[in-house]
Amino acid sequence: MSRRRRLYEGKAKVLYEGPEPGTLVQHFKDDATAGNGEKHEVIDGKGVLNNRISEFIFTQLNDLGIPTHFIKRLNMREQLIREVEIIPLEVVVRNVAAGSICKRLGLESGTRLPRSIIEFYYKDDKLGDPIVAEEHITAFGWANPQELDDIMSMAVRINDFLCGMFLGAGIQLVDFKIELGRLYEDDTMRIVLADEISPDSCRLWDVKTQNKLDKDRFRQDLGGLVDAYREVAQRLGILSEADNALATGPRLVQ
Amino acid sequence: MSRRRRLYEGKAKVLYEGPEPGTLVQHFKDDATAGNGEKHEVIDGKGVLNNRISEFIFTQLNDLGIPTHFIKRLNMREQLIREVEIIPLEVVVRNVAAGSICKRLGLESGTRLPRSIIEFYYKDDKLGDPIVAEEHITAFGWANPQELDDIMSMAVRINDFLCGMFLGAGIQLVDFKIELGRLYEDDTMRIVLADEISPDSCRLWDVKTQNKLDKDRFRQDLGGLVDAYREVAQRLGILSEADNALATGPRLVQ
Ligand SMILES: Nc1ncnc2c1ncn2[C@@H]1O[C@H](COP(=O)(O)OP(=O)(O)O)[C@@H](O)[C@H]1O
Ligand SMILES: Nc1ncnc2c1ncn2[C@@H]1O[C@H](COP(=O)(O)OP(=O)(O)O)[C@@H](O)[C@H]1O
Ligand SMILES: [Mg+2]
Ligand SMILES: [Mg+2]
Repeated sequence: MSRRRRLYEGKAKVLYEGPEPGTLVQHFKDDATAGNGEKHEVIDGKGVLNNRISEFIFTQLNDLGIPTHFIKRLNMREQLIREVEIIPLEVVVRNVAAGSICKRLGLESGTRLPRSIIEFYYKDDKLGDPIVAEEHITAFGWANPQELDDIMSMAVRINDFLCGMFLGAGIQLVDFKIELGRLYEDDTMRIVLADEISPDSCRLWDVKTQNKLDKDRFRQDLGGLVDAYREVAQRLGILSEADNALATGPRLVQ
Repeated sequence: MSRRRRLYEGKAKVLYEGPEPGTLVQHFKDDATAGNGEKHEVIDGKGVLNNRISEFIFTQLNDLGIPTHFIKRLNMREQLIREVEIIPLEVVVRNVAAGSICKRLGLESGTRLPRSIIEFYYKDDKLGDPIVAEEHITAFGWANPQELDDIMSMAVRINDFLCGMFLGAGIQLVDFKIELGRLYEDDTMRIVLADEISPDSCRLWDVKTQNKLDKDRFRQDLGGLVDAYREVAQRLGILSEADNALATGPRLVQ
């Protein structure tokens, strides 16, 4: 790759200046973190798989008319995206209780929720991404009520699509996290899906075995993370036989 | 008092069966607790003052057309109330940052919020009263969207009234907590204000000195809690000279 300006290095990705104004290059690293960065490991091959899985999902969502930042994949680890003004919220959609909601509301992990629940967390590592309500979001101006309505409609549509897609692959979508941003074009602004959707940002359970095929393998020290992510990619028909070999060979993962 | 059936003993009050069906007697104890019951003390005279202050506020709110459970005060420590089906939410209205919101959102105590913020906590001692959003409330059926709208309108009206009332007494209303319940009459149901409003459930700062005139005196081991509550009652014109003596004399507080 030609030399590009690095704009931001996050926990799992790096953003570089893109080739055209208003574009960025999103680079998927192999780093895995949990507990707000307390736990950290480099897991060979994770970035390559997340780049492919996220490309696949964002392409489908674009086709469905759900606007995203995704333009195209550039190479094994990188994709071209539209630069947006990130809304500082992690939007979580939950179908089944798992993770933090269990302790907070006294639910057993695996309990189907009475209906899908949308949660908002204020994206701030120093504060540990605290859960917030619409009241806080509008009072502090992180998003306005109209934007929140748009975000919630998009979250519901994305959940509908992802539930179907994963179920078709024998996988239960327990919950997932998305980030959204404001895209300014001409004189208009619209909210688009940004960041990534991958096994790093979803809880995915095998329908038959209840095996975890997501980042909980890392959080809970279960091992086999890359195998699980590759399984997800294969079931979604993303990896060809050839890619499969690629994703396995450590030489090609740099 | 004649013997009555005790229906519920809480951290600060006891509920007895009332003289008529659909009524209860709410008895104010002297117990103070904090940190979800971890800290506990009996503070002579607190119950008497809270009974009077809460009577005063609920009477004013009733007069303003904000429905409450309050019927009348019976004696020093007790009031007659309508029995309601309590909605398991602590509704907190905040005007200025203090307490838990400071740590959660990284705000300095005493910062005026951009606007008043309404928060909901799921009332469950075992779970430590976790903060929840409208999504959780409606998904788990703790209240429906129409009820939540009513609750939020009532919370705003109560905040408007209380801000004015306390300001008139040289006191800043930093935040307060209310509980609401469903009152069934004939074939109709309406949401009414229940429980209490007192220095136990408000943060009250003296406008001039910024002295705390509320339960934070207990939470933060500042001492002088009963003096502070009596000061609030006096400024609101609730205690006559005679009452004043009563509230001070330990003999009359049993
Ligand atoms: N289209 C976009 N435009 C600008 N920023 C984006 C876009 N998509 C994602 N981001 C941001 O880029 C960063 C991606 O890197 P990541 O490693 O996930 O960072 P973090 O540790 O902050 O979550 C995130 O901070 C995310 O909010
Ligand atoms: N009108 C009412 N009808 C029924 N229950 C009520 C009414 N008003 C308040 N309550 C309930 O009575 C209890 C009051 O006692 P308290 O010591 O505050 O209890 P707690 O420790 O549960 O907060 C609370 O649980 C409150 O929800
Ligand atoms: Mg991220
Ligand atoms: Mg109480």
